[in-house]
Amino acid sequence: MTIIPAFLSLLSLFGPVVSHEHYGTTLLPRSDDTTPGASFSYVGMTGPLNWYSLDRQANALCATGRNQSPTNLASDTNLSSSCSIVLDIPNAPEGALLENLGVAVDVFTNGTLTQRNVTSELVQFHFHTPSEHSVNGMHYPMEVHFVFQASDASVSVVGFFIDFGELDTLLEPIVAGLPDIPSHGNTTTTGPLDFSSILDHFCSNSIYQYSGSLTTPPCSEGVSWIISSEPIRIDVPSYDAFRQLLGFNARYIQNAIGEINLLENIARQLQGSD
Amino acid sequence: MTIIPAFLSLLSLFGPVVSHEHYGTTLLPRSDDTTPGASFSYVGMTGPLNWYSLDRQANALCATGRNQSPTNLASDTNLSSSCSIVLDIPNAPEGALLENLGVAVDVFTNGTLTQRNVTSELVQFHFHTPSEHSVNGMHYPMEVHFVFQASDASVSVVGFFIDFGELDTLLEPIVAGLPDIPSHGNTTTTGPLDFSSILDHFCSNSIYQYSGSLTTPPCSEGVSWIISSEPIRIDVPSYDAFRQLLGFNARYIQNAIGEINLLENIARQLQGSD
Repeated sequence: MTIIPAFLSLLSLFGPVVSHEHYGTTLLPRSDDTTPGASFSYVGMTGPLNWYSLDRQANALCATGRNQSPTNLASDTNLSSSCSIVLDIPNAPEGALLENLGVAVDVFTNGTLTQRNVTSELVQFHFHTPSEHSVNGMHYPMEVHFVFQASDASVSVVGFFIDFGELDTLLEPIVAGLPDIPSHGNTTTTGPLDFSSILDHFCSNSIYQYSGSLTTPPCSEGVSWIISSEPIRIDVPSYDAFRQLLGFNARYIQNAIGEINLLENIARQLQGSD
Repeated sequence: MTIIPAFLSLLSLFGPVVSHEHYGTTLLPRSDDTTPGASFSYVGMTGPLNWYSLDRQANALCATGRNQSPTNLASDTNLSSSCSIVLDIPNAPEGALLENLGVAVDVFTNGTLTQRNVTSELVQFHFHTPSEHSVNGMHYPMEVHFVFQASDASVSVVGFFIDFGELDTLLEPIVAGLPDIPSHGNTTTTGPLDFSSILDHFCSNSIYQYSGSLTTPPCSEGVSWIISSEPIRIDVPSYDAFRQLLGFNARYIQNAIGEINLLENIARQLQGSD
């Protein structure tokens, strides 16, 4: 896992990193294990409707940000060519670290994303069931997010929807590793990872692009989203393996970019009625 | 469709009914087409986080009710036998009315639910993608709700999760009718409906029971929920047909029964930070 030092150094821009789980999906790590709100979930008082309260200062944008993700994508707008973006993720013949973070399953390997002459490093990729983004109001069974960070700390996420069909080559060794990580904190090493098919898929399909946020606390904005318009594929048994392990781990669809945060809105509405 | 007069008379307890869509999933009809908030959706300013604002008086419980549905069900609690509940839905050899209500697909046929010597009449049944309820944090691809109303207007809903597998006998003619109702307001008549397998399924599996609410505006409480612990089955192509037609139409998981409404909570939290 020679890539770990590389991304640790990137992430150390934000403070000391004490374990994988502090940057698994939140990306921007919390400084230590005792930070209030370091743990979140997808339901109830620790779920997306209350992430703000878990740490009012750090997570303020979760309830007040107006450029929040995920969003509903419209199939007839925002589509652009993927040609100007270079996604380079070397195959990992030795496999990669696979970790159960409780709120997600993350894979740690190296790679780069280059757009407009800026190169970002792959931090990890992880999975959501169901998809976080929707297209014309329709969700997919899953979504995978490749999280990249540039040297100025700016974040880009390349997302692929995952729909039913023949199991994608890349996903196969990851699915095979899931039984080894039944609990939060478990890690294993996957079989060899072959990124050629997903990179081909990215190149040969148009993309949605917008500026949004992390979909987990602290919901930081300025995240460059790049989402392939066509899903990759998973078979039902493999989907079941992810679903049983992850449960539901998708933030609800946010208001349209630029519009009032839905939580700030309901707070105003309820205040108005007092 | 001889059952329509029967349930119209039930529903007329709540005011004049002008078209199916006023009671499709909301059950409790609005009085006329011009009522503010008569239309809702599952995203953005007309979505679940803002149903309250669509009609502050009628929909108050959507943001303040503390017995709201759907909830997360825990597999090790609340399970009880289905033996004391008699679900009787006669086969419909002539088929049944199938309607695209925009926010759901409803089937209108007759039937009864009897528990504790109270008999309720089936109003309709309808479908959600993905499931509204979750079990231990896991959602199913779909959920079907059979909505019953007693003469005192109290509402009971019998729900079945729908997971992947061989297409259920009951679902087959409904799926076959979906291409005939591509748009909101479209209706068709299904092929013959056979309820025997789903009734057997209900009888032979334990159930979750709790008192919750309608999962659509006006989010009325006091709804008796009865949910089969074991899913019925759908194949992937049929799921796709529902998903393409319905899009995402599941309300988010509410706070635990008796706990503060998540929307009232965030409003208080944001007020507290002013």
